[in-house]
Amino acid sequence: MQFLLGFNAIGERLAEFEWGALMIKVGLGALKILAIYIVFLIVRALGNRIIEKAFTKYEQKENVSVGRAQTLQHLTKNILGYILIFVFVVTVLQILTIDVTAIIAGAGIVGLAVGFGAQGLVSDVVTGFFILLEKQIDVGDYVTTGSFSGIVEQVGLRTTQIRGFDGTLHYVPNREITSISNHTRGNMQAIVDIGISYNDNIDQAITVLQETCDQIASGDDNIVEGPNVLGVQTLGSSDVVLRVIAKTKNMEQWGVERKLRKAFKEAFDANGIEIPYPHQVNVEMKEHSTSN
Amino acid sequence: MQFLLGFNAIGERLAEFEWGALMIKVGLGALKILAIYIVFLIVRALGNRIIEKAFTKYEQKENVSVGRAQTLQHLTKNILGYILIFVFVVTVLQILTIDVTAIIAGAGIVGLAVGFGAQGLVSDVVTGFFILLEKQIDVGDYVTTGSFSGIVEQVGLRTTQIRGFDGTLHYVPNREITSISNHTRGNMQAIVDIGISYNDNIDQAITVLQETCDQIASGDDNIVEGPNVLGVQTLGSSDVVLRVIAKTKNMEQWGVERKLRKAFKEAFDANGIEIPYPHQVNVEMKEHSTSN
Amino acid sequence: MQFLLGFNAIGERLAEFEWGALMIKVGLGALKILAIYIVFLIVRALGNRIIEKAFTKYEQKENVSVGRAQTLQHLTKNILGYILIFVFVVTVLQILTIDVTAIIAGAGIVGLAVGFGAQGLVSDVVTGFFILLEKQIDVGDYVTTGSFSGIVEQVGLRTTQIRGFDGTLHYVPNREITSISNHTRGNMQAIVDIGISYNDNIDQAITVLQETCDQIASGDDNIVEGPNVLGVQTLGSSDVVLRVIAKTKNMEQWGVERKLRKAFKEAFDANGIEIPYPHQVNVEMKEHSTSN
Amino acid sequence: MQFLLGFNAIGERLAEFEWGALMIKVGLGALKILAIYIVFLIVRALGNRIIEKAFTKYEQKENVSVGRAQTLQHLTKNILGYILIFVFVVTVLQILTIDVTAIIAGAGIVGLAVGFGAQGLVSDVVTGFFILLEKQIDVGDYVTTGSFSGIVEQVGLRTTQIRGFDGTLHYVPNREITSISNHTRGNMQAIVDIGISYNDNIDQAITVLQETCDQIASGDDNIVEGPNVLGVQTLGSSDVVLRVIAKTKNMEQWGVERKLRKAFKEAFDANGIEIPYPHQVNVEMKEHSTSN
Amino acid sequence: MQFLLGFNAIGERLAEFEWGALMIKVGLGALKILAIYIVFLIVRALGNRIIEKAFTKYEQKENVSVGRAQTLQHLTKNILGYILIFVFVVTVLQILTIDVTAIIAGAGIVGLAVGFGAQGLVSDVVTGFFILLEKQIDVGDYVTTGSFSGIVEQVGLRTTQIRGFDGTLHYVPNREITSISNHTRGNMQAIVDIGISYNDNIDQAITVLQETCDQIASGDDNIVEGPNVLGVQTLGSSDVVLRVIAKTKNMEQWGVERKLRKAFKEAFDANGIEIPYPHQVNVEMKEHSTSN
Amino acid sequence: MQFLLGFNAIGERLAEFEWGALMIKVGLGALKILAIYIVFLIVRALGNRIIEKAFTKYEQKENVSVGRAQTLQHLTKNILGYILIFVFVVTVLQILTIDVTAIIAGAGIVGLAVGFGAQGLVSDVVTGFFILLEKQIDVGDYVTTGSFSGIVEQVGLRTTQIRGFDGTLHYVPNREITSISNHTRGNMQAIVDIGISYNDNIDQAITVLQETCDQIASGDDNIVEGPNVLGVQTLGSSDVVLRVIAKTKNMEQWGVERKLRKAFKEAFDANGIEIPYPHQVNVEMKEHSTSN
Amino acid sequence: MQFLLGFNAIGERLAEFEWGALMIKVGLGALKILAIYIVFLIVRALGNRIIEKAFTKYEQKENVSVGRAQTLQHLTKNILGYILIFVFVVTVLQILTIDVTAIIAGAGIVGLAVGFGAQGLVSDVVTGFFILLEKQIDVGDYVTTGSFSGIVEQVGLRTTQIRGFDGTLHYVPNREITSISNHTRGNMQAIVDIGISYNDNIDQAITVLQETCDQIASGDDNIVEGPNVLGVQTLGSSDVVLRVIAKTKNMEQWGVERKLRKAFKEAFDANGIEIPYPHQVNVEMKEHSTSN
Repeated sequence: MQFLLGFNAIGERLAEFEWGALMIKVGLGALKILAIYIVFLIVRALGNRIIEKAFTKYEQKENVSVGRAQTLQHLTKNILGYILIFVFVVTVLQILTIDVTAIIAGAGIVGLAVGFGAQGLVSDVVTGFFILLEKQIDVGDYVTTGSFSGIVEQVGLRTTQIRGFDGTLHYVPNREITSISNHTRGNMQAIVDIGISYNDNIDQAITVLQETCDQIASGDDNIVEGPNVLGVQTLGSSDVVLRVIAKTKNMEQWGVERKLRKAFKEAFDANGIEIPYPHQVNVEMKEHSTSN
Repeated sequence: MQFLLGFNAIGERLAEFEWGALMIKVGLGALKILAIYIVFLIVRALGNRIIEKAFTKYEQKENVSVGRAQTLQHLTKNILGYILIFVFVVTVLQILTIDVTAIIAGAGIVGLAVGFGAQGLVSDVVTGFFILLEKQIDVGDYVTTGSFSGIVEQVGLRTTQIRGFDGTLHYVPNREITSISNHTRGNMQAIVDIGISYNDNIDQAITVLQETCDQIASGDDNIVEGPNVLGVQTLGSSDVVLRVIAKTKNMEQWGVERKLRKAFKEAFDANGIEIPYPHQVNVEMKEHSTSN
Repeated sequence: MQFLLGFNAIGERLAEFEWGALMIKVGLGALKILAIYIVFLIVRALGNRIIEKAFTKYEQKENVSVGRAQTLQHLTKNILGYILIFVFVVTVLQILTIDVTAIIAGAGIVGLAVGFGAQGLVSDVVTGFFILLEKQIDVGDYVTTGSFSGIVEQVGLRTTQIRGFDGTLHYVPNREITSISNHTRGNMQAIVDIGISYNDNIDQAITVLQETCDQIASGDDNIVEGPNVLGVQTLGSSDVVLRVIAKTKNMEQWGVERKLRKAFKEAFDANGIEIPYPHQVNVEMKEHSTSN
Repeated sequence: MQFLLGFNAIGERLAEFEWGALMIKVGLGALKILAIYIVFLIVRALGNRIIEKAFTKYEQKENVSVGRAQTLQHLTKNILGYILIFVFVVTVLQILTIDVTAIIAGAGIVGLAVGFGAQGLVSDVVTGFFILLEKQIDVGDYVTTGSFSGIVEQVGLRTTQIRGFDGTLHYVPNREITSISNHTRGNMQAIVDIGISYNDNIDQAITVLQETCDQIASGDDNIVEGPNVLGVQTLGSSDVVLRVIAKTKNMEQWGVERKLRKAFKEAFDANGIEIPYPHQVNVEMKEHSTSN
Repeated sequence: MQFLLGFNAIGERLAEFEWGALMIKVGLGALKILAIYIVFLIVRALGNRIIEKAFTKYEQKENVSVGRAQTLQHLTKNILGYILIFVFVVTVLQILTIDVTAIIAGAGIVGLAVGFGAQGLVSDVVTGFFILLEKQIDVGDYVTTGSFSGIVEQVGLRTTQIRGFDGTLHYVPNREITSISNHTRGNMQAIVDIGISYNDNIDQAITVLQETCDQIASGDDNIVEGPNVLGVQTLGSSDVVLRVIAKTKNMEQWGVERKLRKAFKEAFDANGIEIPYPHQVNVEMKEHSTSN
Repeated sequence: MQFLLGFNAIGERLAEFEWGALMIKVGLGALKILAIYIVFLIVRALGNRIIEKAFTKYEQKENVSVGRAQTLQHLTKNILGYILIFVFVVTVLQILTIDVTAIIAGAGIVGLAVGFGAQGLVSDVVTGFFILLEKQIDVGDYVTTGSFSGIVEQVGLRTTQIRGFDGTLHYVPNREITSISNHTRGNMQAIVDIGISYNDNIDQAITVLQETCDQIASGDDNIVEGPNVLGVQTLGSSDVVLRVIAKTKNMEQWGVERKLRKAFKEAFDANGIEIPYPHQVNVEMKEHSTSN
Repeated sequence: MQFLLGFNAIGERLAEFEWGALMIKVGLGALKILAIYIVFLIVRALGNRIIEKAFTKYEQKENVSVGRAQTLQHLTKNILGYILIFVFVVTVLQILTIDVTAIIAGAGIVGLAVGFGAQGLVSDVVTGFFILLEKQIDVGDYVTTGSFSGIVEQVGLRTTQIRGFDGTLHYVPNREITSISNHTRGNMQAIVDIGISYNDNIDQAITVLQETCDQIASGDDNIVEGPNVLGVQTLGSSDVVLRVIAKTKNMEQWGVERKLRKAFKEAFDANGIEIPYPHQVNVEMKEHSTSN
């Protein structure tokens, strides 16, 4: 019977329920969401404006191709967008009194595991962003990174494609590009080391080499500076090594080196200077009777 | 006796219990769950629609096989599905006033330990996803990754199977594939280095080589460009090394190289040009009496 | 005196204590635990059913041995069971208003330290699970992983036992198995490189080799394809190297290679083709008077 | 004056203080602690019983020495004990309304730093536990792990002591034992590679070797199977290498190899088969006038 | 009907709503924000002042170029600014009773994943900051770091550009610069090792070398100290090696070494001291009848 | 005017302030602190007692020097002390209603960064503790760890000092000591490998060696067992290698080896057994007219 | 109209606002801050006093230069100061009821990312602190660490500067200094290995060497002990190697070694003992008709 009394009480309580407070609460919540949405729109617009200005300035200052600047600007705007949407959704959910913390915390565990696994991906994009931004490599550059050398075919946010000399296409994730050696940034050095016999006169050899150098230099546009004989680089076990260096146009260093090697060999032949084979002094021990 | 009074009080309190408030709470909770379920369904449908459109576009743009696109689309939808179910379950549990945080936190400890152990798995799938998406390798490609070379037999989300030249099947987890060198992306370069004697005339040797090259080029469809003699690659210790390169059809580079080597050797024999053995100058020291 | 009054008050308060509310609370708690237990049983039964079905399907599709499928199914069910028991215990403790968070948090610190130390264990089991699931290796396979080669004696969830050629038993934790090279997946290639003298005729040598190959191929069931002479593999410093390859039955490649080597040597002897020793050209410098 | 009134009020308030509620609270707390203690005792007893049964079963099944089983059981019981005491203490502290979270959180920071430093220790024990449990090595086994080879002198939970061949005692932390190669698990293979001259007849050499092998096999109990001549292992630069293998009793492989080497050398001497020195063909270039 | 009563109640409740408390709350909040903003401005101004003073002092003390000091000061102020803005925004949001924790926690998951990926970036900047601050390298220095050697072209906060000797431009992320070897910090050592025959008199050779050294030293401004003969560096297999060292002006060491090598060779020739070829004692074994 | 009323109200409220409750609170807090302090003292005393007993037992059982035991005991007590003080301070601060969590959390961030940096330090101490506890090395031992060999000069909790053979003092942080090879734990093995000519009789050589061994063994107290000739260790390219081993007193192995080498050389000379130089068969190719 | 009533109510409520409680709260807060500030001052003073005493004791005990002690003391005080200021600020902010947790948590995310990047910095300082404290290296010491050798020019908290022998200045971050080999801690060993011919008498050679040693020892103050001939170090392929060692003053070992080498060579020349060139036995194979 007391239960009936209890149910009786329910009716009263329902009547007493604070509908007004609820309505105010709902109304306030809606207002809050609206306000946050407006703030969201303003911040996004402002952020995009700032990004655009920064990139326009960067484009003018650094003389970057429009395509590259567009890629970078696009990425930056996207990231800003995602961050703002995330903040907006979480805030709205909170106002709806749904406790997002647990979801996020729960997601966090999976997220962390994934994060560890996916950190390579993030690392790729971060590195790729800076490779593009700092113009470290361009399509067509001849570069070396890690164990790969070749012509850059494509620079992406995640992978860089390098075409090796033998025709192989190397897909290198950007995170693997710790250091880049770009061989297409200015003139290159051609280096030729050539050995003469210990019996030859060093001064004569240097004169012959230098004359050959001068002759070649006068007839080759690819040579920017030199070639010049530096002097005795090493006293080898069988030869005296002389070094010749020349500054050449980019990518022409190998051709120049080949030309110099041929010319030096022929000049030495003409002047009777020997490029010696490895030498060995043989001490003959004639009488070898029983044991050593 | 006071205890009896106490029990008496229980009856009264029970009667006073706010059954109405409880019912309202229950009703509101059910409504909330329903609302969340509807949101869940909408978001999932929307998400799937977006994924489908993205992949259709990707398929058309990148000219991907339908099978590959299906695999990727399937994976993406599954991941979205799991995330949404997780969010849904956590939210419902919270409405049922079961505190999920502790469970999640507790699970988190185990999860972290597992996560560290399982990060390799995630890393495999993330890398595998991008290998498929960016079409870095196809079944049948001849690739090198790490210390493994061979024909790709299968590209999975977790492992890639590579059939080595000697018949061995290599199972490589995708995370181990940091960089891929794909040898089946366009024409390849055949490179033959051949040494001539220091006594031979370089110009004559080059002429002989180039003639042989031209003869072979005219009769071999696998050669796309050249073979051409580049010049003096090295002044070796016993020989002058000349380099010949040719652009060939993919996978035909070894055959072309074998052909060139045989032809060069025979052309040199015919023209009396020597491929020299290693040389050594022996300085004889005849009289060796007591000690050195 | 006021204290006495205070004690007097205790009696009254005790009488006033809300025994009814307590009982309701206790009753509700018991109901909650019961409900959760039922949910627990249902979820476990459902989970096991799903696992069983998945593995039955996997068994039929992948043609796996029943034993292997049982091991994997057992592991999966165990993991599900542990997770559900954990969730159940934590939920019940919470209903008993014991704050599990602190215990878990506290355990978490130790757990983390242990987790870092034990991550190897988890990593072993995760890798082992996939090695079994993807049938990468079977007992009796001849495999290479890291620096170990040999016949697989046992594949466990934690360690794989490999019997090396010299009789040593290698215990390899599964996490150390980053890539597996399985030499027991299809036919193998036998490769024999053999050098001939620079003075010999290449065409004749190739004819002799190919004839020997054909003779052997006709009398050996272990040879599946070839053996065929590929051509000039290298122009070595003292010999012209020819390569012969043959496809053989699995594990028979070494026997075939031994057979080929013996036959080639004997055929060359019979035909007067030389397998040359290393050559050196000695330039004698007779008169060595004072210094070099 | 109002202050005096205030103090007056204190007296009243003290009198009004809910001593009864406090006492009930205290009583309930004591009861709770008691209940938890009982649960603690039951769980520990149960846990120990389960551990004991598991190890008895393990002992019988795996045929482990009682000492090893005792060590493992002791460790397992200790770990369970520490966990339960930890849970008990934290729970009691919470009932005493001391917030353990802060202490734990604070300790956590130090704990984490220590944990990172001490993870090696945990890793040692976890690995040691499994080395013992899976009987990978026994005292007296001849094993190789990493760069250390030798006889196992002691297997502990933290370090394993290996006595090297030269008498050095290696202390190897168990975590450093990533893979173990146990040379004391069954028969071993004796392998002898022996080179014959290119001028010798291969068939004759094989016959001589096989006869020697059979002679030795008949007189040596340490040889389990073979020795047998496999055939031509390599066509070396100066010799034709033949391989002989034999299965021997454990640890006897070196003795058998020494015996075989001596016998082979003597048999070859007796049959006029040459074990050749390295060969070199010397091409004499007599007239060396000016330069090369 | 009771509902109508309920709605009636809403009106009353609205009227009863504590508008005053709300207004006070709003007012207090605004005041708080204002106060915090003022504190923010003061702290920023103070911080900037402290930074400026520190850098002025650093500039004077360390004699740094104004440009470098500006870069460092700019970076420091920016970091301070970002930190203060962050703190300000979070505080304001809290006063607006928006719970930032969830947003931050949620962001934290992504942040952590990104953080792991981007830690390289931070590591670059931190290292770059100290490279600049400690003046370890300047533009124009000749340095070696890791596998790269060359002239520094640019030192940035993220990457350092090094121009290799062959003209290649190396982009090295600062985090890769673990140790720097700067070859442009003071005088350098020229080292020449020269071998004489075992038949030559060591004292005579030392005298000849020292005389040559003194002659060169007197005519070369690049030599700061020495060159001096140290003595017998090695008793080689064919020669007695003497070492000569000299202190030279920076970057002139190679020139001096080349000069010394040429002079030594010519002095030895003039004095009849031999720079020996590798020696070998040949023990002739004439009668080689059957086998070895 | 209402404000004045407000102020009027302040007075009343102050008077109404619950001074009694405050005092009770303060009193209870003080009591709590006192109780905790007593518990702290008891736990510390108990802990120290337990540590002392454990070390006394350890000292007796393991026969450790008192100094070493003192060091370990001191460290253990210190750690216990720091932990208890930390717990005590945190608990007291909580009773003073100062929320320590924030401080700790804040400190945690810095702490984590430091922790990562300082983990090496912790790792040093943990490893050092076990090196001392397990008596792996003593001052004066000759040990090898990583790339350092030498006599241990000092074993500290953080670094171990090893004096190399050339006089260098190596400071090795304990964490770098992953494995220790202690050469001062029992007798050592002297190993001498000596080659004889292929023309010599193996049995005769073994007899000569064994006789020499017996002669030396009888006159040298440093030899514990042997020396014994094991047999033919290798069939080298120019010699038949025989192995002799002997067990010697610790650190005497090198002396014994030197003695054996001298004796063997002299015994071979006396018996006409040759220790051969490297051999080479020279195949003379006399007529070398035009090319190879 | 009810709104007006509402506003009316605001007035009343404002009047009713508990201004007294607010004031008490404010007053209590101020008192709390003051108390905490005093505690802060006391703790700092105490901490500094303790640090000073510890360092004074350390200075006296370890005989450290005042400069080094000052550096370490300064660092320790700074760290204490920063920690106390941090705790003080956080506590005060909490009393001002500003929730610091969110700020800290938020900062934590950035902090963690930075922390990972900056951990190298912390690691540098921690290692640097101990290098200074334990006096492992002093300015002017000749040390080897990793791949760098040279004279220490500066030991900083972050980097150590080492001047290489060739004049290069190496900047080594302290964290890279895992182990230090200090060559300036006591006397050094000079080691000279010298080979004699297999035909020479070992005893005679030892006598000659020892006499030369004694002669040099008597005339050289840099030699502390020895030089002594140890005996036959190796039976080389062409020579019997004898080892001579001597204890010399620090940094004089190279000079002594050079002196010994010269003296030994001259003594051997005077006594007709040969330092042999590499030997080779040439087995001539005269008749080489067709093939090998």
